[in-house]
Amino acid sequence: MDLGPLRPYTWALVLGLLVPVSWTLDLVLGPGVVVFVVAGIAIIPLAWFLGLGTEELGKHAGPGVGGLLNATFGNATELIIAIFALTRGLTEVVKASLTGSIVGNILLVLGLSMLVGGLRHKSQSFSREASGIQVAMLVVAVIGLLMPALYVLSAEAKGGVSPLTLEEISVGIAAILVVAYVLGLLFSLRTHRDIFNPITEVEDRPRWSKRFALIVLVVSTGLVALESEILVESLEPARTALGLTDLFVGVIIVAIVGNAAEHGSAVLMAYRNKMELSVAVATTSTTQVALFVAPALVFVSLLTVRPMTLDFEIFELASLALSTAVVSAVISDGRSNWYEGALLVMVYAVIAVAFFFHPA
Amino acid sequence: MDLGPLRPYTWALVLGLLVPVSWTLDLVLGPGVVVFVVAGIAIIPLAWFLGLGTEELGKHAGPGVGGLLNATFGNATELIIAIFALTRGLTEVVKASLTGSIVGNILLVLGLSMLVGGLRHKSQSFSREASGIQVAMLVVAVIGLLMPALYVLSAEAKGGVSPLTLEEISVGIAAILVVAYVLGLLFSLRTHRDIFNPITEVEDRPRWSKRFALIVLVVSTGLVALESEILVESLEPARTALGLTDLFVGVIIVAIVGNAAEHGSAVLMAYRNKMELSVAVATTSTTQVALFVAPALVFVSLLTVRPMTLDFEIFELASLALSTAVVSAVISDGRSNWYEGALLVMVYAVIAVAFFFHPA
Amino acid sequence: MDLGPLRPYTWALVLGLLVPVSWTLDLVLGPGVVVFVVAGIAIIPLAWFLGLGTEELGKHAGPGVGGLLNATFGNATELIIAIFALTRGLTEVVKASLTGSIVGNILLVLGLSMLVGGLRHKSQSFSREASGIQVAMLVVAVIGLLMPALYVLSAEAKGGVSPLTLEEISVGIAAILVVAYVLGLLFSLRTHRDIFNPITEVEDRPRWSKRFALIVLVVSTGLVALESEILVESLEPARTALGLTDLFVGVIIVAIVGNAAEHGSAVLMAYRNKMELSVAVATTSTTQVALFVAPALVFVSLLTVRPMTLDFEIFELASLALSTAVVSAVISDGRSNWYEGALLVMVYAVIAVAFFFHPA
Repeated sequence: MDLGPLRPYTWALVLGLLVPVSWTLDLVLGPGVVVFVVAGIAIIPLAWFLGLGTEELGKHAGPGVGGLLNATFGNATELIIAIFALTRGLTEVVKASLTGSIVGNILLVLGLSMLVGGLRHKSQSFSREASGIQVAMLVVAVIGLLMPALYVLSAEAKGGVSPLTLEEISVGIAAILVVAYVLGLLFSLRTHRDIFNPITEVEDRPRWSKRFALIVLVVSTGLVALESEILVESLEPARTALGLTDLFVGVIIVAIVGNAAEHGSAVLMAYRNKMELSVAVATTSTTQVALFVAPALVFVSLLTVRPMTLDFEIFELASLALSTAVVSAVISDGRSNWYEGALLVMVYAVIAVAFFFHPA
Repeated sequence: MDLGPLRPYTWALVLGLLVPVSWTLDLVLGPGVVVFVVAGIAIIPLAWFLGLGTEELGKHAGPGVGGLLNATFGNATELIIAIFALTRGLTEVVKASLTGSIVGNILLVLGLSMLVGGLRHKSQSFSREASGIQVAMLVVAVIGLLMPALYVLSAEAKGGVSPLTLEEISVGIAAILVVAYVLGLLFSLRTHRDIFNPITEVEDRPRWSKRFALIVLVVSTGLVALESEILVESLEPARTALGLTDLFVGVIIVAIVGNAAEHGSAVLMAYRNKMELSVAVATTSTTQVALFVAPALVFVSLLTVRPMTLDFEIFELASLALSTAVVSAVISDGRSNWYEGALLVMVYAVIAVAFFFHPA
Repeated sequence: MDLGPLRPYTWALVLGLLVPVSWTLDLVLGPGVVVFVVAGIAIIPLAWFLGLGTEELGKHAGPGVGGLLNATFGNATELIIAIFALTRGLTEVVKASLTGSIVGNILLVLGLSMLVGGLRHKSQSFSREASGIQVAMLVVAVIGLLMPALYVLSAEAKGGVSPLTLEEISVGIAAILVVAYVLGLLFSLRTHRDIFNPITEVEDRPRWSKRFALIVLVVSTGLVALESEILVESLEPARTALGLTDLFVGVIIVAIVGNAAEHGSAVLMAYRNKMELSVAVATTSTTQVALFVAPALVFVSLLTVRPMTLDFEIFELASLALSTAVVSAVISDGRSNWYEGALLVMVYAVIAVAFFFHPA
């Protein structure tokens, strides 16, 4: 097999050397801070190749199926890490990483994109219509994720929370969110493709052969799975050693690791004045996590010993709701500048400070 | 009297046969599930005729007084049902039905209108200015309805809620909301009629004689009152028999019954690509309930043994605030499509699930 | 020195006679209701001269430094009153006055401006871009001010609030808010001056000499300081005598006194159809308080015996968040009319009612 098509991605191949390093360290040192850090970095290039493989395969499959592929595999790394964490019963970390992923995408990724892009270009524009629908999808998701916590709050005041009811509510809401997601795919890939056209049409010619793309996809998915297991196994001892809370690890650290590759490409596109694409990456990734990954994990968790419900921490919910509010204020005019980007990053910083000091 | 003008409304006349049926059942079976269901359906055509009579009389009175008539009698059915419920001390059901009416109008009516209209027409447009003002009115109402609950929350933490203070706050806020409503009428019917013009000008020629319209209005109001009494009398036994909570009955069932006729006509208008009218029906009806019906009931309740305060359940408040947020995100661009409608319906489904599982 | 340039401001000079009156009363009667009222009125013309002096000096310094001067001294009166209150340990009153100042600026000042301007002009317009960025800044500030209270809420449920952690969170967030403020100055005075241009360019020619402006600035600042001390000293006995709560005094009374001069000029500009300037005064003043005065007081309070943290009352936070929501709904279209102004004033009334009945 000719590995030539991978040559432009030297940075990723070099970082990828950390994959075998992490295995060796895991064997020699056992789970801990060092393994956690190395595996966390090693997973970034793997996520990048997983993304590339999906994209290239999608180009062969045509816009409809390709869009579907991207929508399903777009957050595969996060999904895989989360599933391994669920099998270890780390439901709180998983929920925190969902929050962190959503907040990170709309505040940090979008914020850095607008900031970096805005430092070079005075004003950048993007589709109000497409981003408006993504914001509406996000508002729907946030409403869904709020309700179970409100049930808990209300039930506590009235004599006691029933875990079974909480699970039923979570499953019911997860089902509704998935329906909203599937209808959203139908909307963006079928009935109203033109709204999202300028985004999906860019670089439609495949650069890889179908076979090569498939191999990259399969191999990187496998390696992501392996690496995720090592990462999750080290998470608990690393967390304890560093004196961090579940919430902080999930919201800030796991979320950054799972999304690092996307972060980089979104910022790069903004720098090249393709703000349309940056906004699309950040918002689509956000709604995927909120409307697809989160409910999918609820269903997957039903197969484990400890089902994951959708009752988030009040801090998490406040962060979700407030991030949505600020991003809605910032993107509603279809234009961005460096200061709007800076404001989003500031909000991320405020949330990070709050989570850092949050009681265990 | 020539009943010819009623001929186009065969469906309503046929459904109207359930009115005497409900009386007979009430005598034979006594209050219960069957009577509740039949009276609930029988009230729908009556509400429809009440609306038609108001509209036709309004055309004779000219736009100014006509607008006033529509604004006052537009939610007469809900007001009548609520007053009967208040006299039986069912303040919780009444408050729940206010929530349900607001949420139902902006999520279910508007959502179904956008969905059904959008399945036939790729994109539909409506006045951003008119709907923007309605959203602002709704935000003001939601703020007013939140404050008493915040007082309760705050007072509980500080030693105890004073029922008298809660009543004073409720009356004070109700007075402010009514002032906002009256000023809103002045604005939309007087000083800035042109903003709402395309809406109010449609079909300005009366189809009924003044006398006929008046008779329909009086008769249907009387029948609505009779039917409401039967409905409310059966509400408690039906609720117990079906094992539902006050909140669910109020928010979902009573709210749907009280608004069914409007729901139908809004969806029909959207299907005929008169989205402007659909949005106007849904949003005007919402602000009427929030700024006029709710405060009016506070004042009416002062005459009963159990005054109704405006401290809503946290679930209700969250539903109100979140529905307002999502509808604001969806209508801010003055255009709609099927997916935006679907999203609104999804939020309604999420809220319905939450209320269904809500502890009694 | 020629006092001629002060001649157009007879009203302020006459009101200024209350300054020596307040001193005499303070000596004769001692701190109490009378001194509180007189000093409260006397401070208004002083704040006005402080503002004029800053503005005139700014014209000599050129747009960049002038903008900086205005941004720093714009809320000097509030800052001075607050510092005197902090030295007496009145942190709750200070926090309440911050809330009141923000809420008062975006609801009362902006609302009255839109209402008064709208009664004379059917529709008035202003820059959507400039006001949009101010709203985004405000949303960021509100998020920052919410987080410490959320920490307290969360920590209470989990075993206890640590005052030290609360202080650390407050200082961390205050630092982020100040950075957002400084970047905002860079944005509006440097990189994107054109967005705010129509506002800052008006009346650029100085009417006073540099020396005269400086003298007015120094003398009025000194008198504001003196008067603030008298005011704050009388605050506690006056509050007790009138039976008002800390919260009500801070949110409604101190906030109105500290902003009265600005209120007047914003309304006057709206009446003259310079809505652009009215909106700029109201929104800039709001973001100054939220992003500069509030964090500055956190830092200043570190030097006193009782550090001020940023954990606001739930009532205050709700007021801040809801005011931001309603103002965002109202100004998003870049146009205003009398009814939008009336709605803002109504929300202020709702909040005032709630705070009046709020338990001590």
